[in-house]
Amino acid sequence: MKIIVVGATGTIGKHVVEALKKDHEIISVGSKTGDFQVDMSDVESIRKLYEKVGPFDALVSTAGNAHFGPVPKMTDADFRVSIDGKLMGQVNLVLIGQHYINPRGSFTLTSGTLGDDPVAYGASVSSINAAIDGFVRGAAIELENGVRINSVAPGVVEDSPGYFPFFPGHIPAAMSNVAQAYVRSVLGAQTGKTYKVQS
Amino acid sequence: MKIIVVGATGTIGKHVVEALKKDHEIISVGSKTGDFQVDMSDVESIRKLYEKVGPFDALVSTAGNAHFGPVPKMTDADFRVSIDGKLMGQVNLVLIGQHYINPRGSFTLTSGTLGDDPVAYGASVSSINAAIDGFVRGAAIELENGVRINSVAPGVVEDSPGYFPFFPGHIPAAMSNVAQAYVRSVLGAQTGKTYKVQS
Repeated sequence: MKIIVVGATGTIGKHVVEALKKDHEIISVGSKTGDFQVDMSDVESIRKLYEKVGPFDALVSTAGNAHFGPVPKMTDADFRVSIDGKLMGQVNLVLIGQHYINPRGSFTLTSGTLGDDPVAYGASVSSINAAIDGFVRGAAIELENGVRINSVAPGVVEDSPGYFPFFPGHIPAAMSNVAQAYVRSVLGAQTGKTYKVQS
Repeated sequence: MKIIVVGATGTIGKHVVEALKKDHEIISVGSKTGDFQVDMSDVESIRKLYEKVGPFDALVSTAGNAHFGPVPKMTDADFRVSIDGKLMGQVNLVLIGQHYINPRGSFTLTSGTLGDDPVAYGASVSSINAAIDGFVRGAAIELENGVRINSVAPGVVEDSPGYFPFFPGHIPAAMSNVAQAYVRSVLGAQTGKTYKVQS
C-alpha cells in the first residue's frame, strides 16, 4: 500500500511511519522535512503535493498547529491559529485529496481527547478536535468509491513531556499504542470512527 | 434578567424570545432587525454591540450561516462559510462578551444534532456543530466569575420544512420544545452541556 504520512517526522508521525514502513511504501511529508514538503495553510501547496505524489492508497495526517492559552485572554486571531492549522489544514488534505486517492483508500486525521475531556488553556483545541471528529462523521457518509475516513484522538503522549503539567492526572499514552490506532484506521475496514488513545 | 438574543427574529430565535419575554428583559439583535444590529463576521461590530447594550445577564445565540453541499464538490471557501458564520461568529460573541457579562451570567450557543448524526451534504455543518459543543466544554471550565456556557443542538425543526427532504426519517422538533432547551440553559445551573433537541 502507498501511504502518505503528513507530519512524518513529528512526535507521533515518526512512530506511525515506524509501525507501517515494513509492509508498505511510505511517502513522508513535512513542512520542512520528508520526501515532500507541504504548507498545510495553502490549498495550492496541498494540490501540488498530490500532483507530485500521484495516486495513493492512504493518507495519515499527524500535523497541524493549535493555540493553547486562557479563555479570558483569547482572541479571534488566537482561535484561528487552531482553525487554519489543525482544522482546515487537515480538512483540505481530504477535500483536495479525495480527487487523487485510489478507490477503497483511506484518510486518517488527528484530533485529540481534549474534544471531549478539556483542560485549562485548551478551549480552542477542544473545539477544533471535536470539529475534526464531526467532519470525519459527516464526510464518511459521502466520500465516493469506497474511500474511508477516520480520526485518531490521542490524549497526552509519552514523548511530549512539555505538556504533562497541563494534563494533571492524565496517564501519558505509550507511543506504540498511539501508532497502533493509526494502523487500525489504515488497515481496518471502519469509517466515520474516532479512535481514542488514552494511556 | 437582561437577556440578549442574537438571531431574535429567526426561525428559532423568535420562539426563544416568546418563551423568555414574559419574565425577562429581552434585547433582540439581528443582522438587519431587532433592537440592535450586529455583523457576526466582524469582531468590531460585536464589540460595539456589547458597548451599546451594556452589562447583561445572559446571551442566547441562534444565529450563524453554514454551508450545505456535497463533499465531492466542497472547497476550502465553502467550508469557511460555516467557520466564519456559525462557528467564529458565536465563538466571538463569547470571547468578547465575557468581558461585558455580569457575574453568574450565561452564554447559550446553537450547534445541532448533525454534529453526531450526519446527513448527506452536511459535512461542514457536522464539523462546525461539533466544534461549538467542543468549545462549550472547553470554555466552561475557564470562564470567570461563575459565568456559564452551554449549547443547544436542535435537529430539523417544524418551522423549517425546506430542510425536511434532507433529513429523511427525522421527526421535526416542535418549536416549543426547541425553545425550552434554551430556557433550560439560561435559567438552569449547568455549564459545559449540550442540550440535544430531537422531536
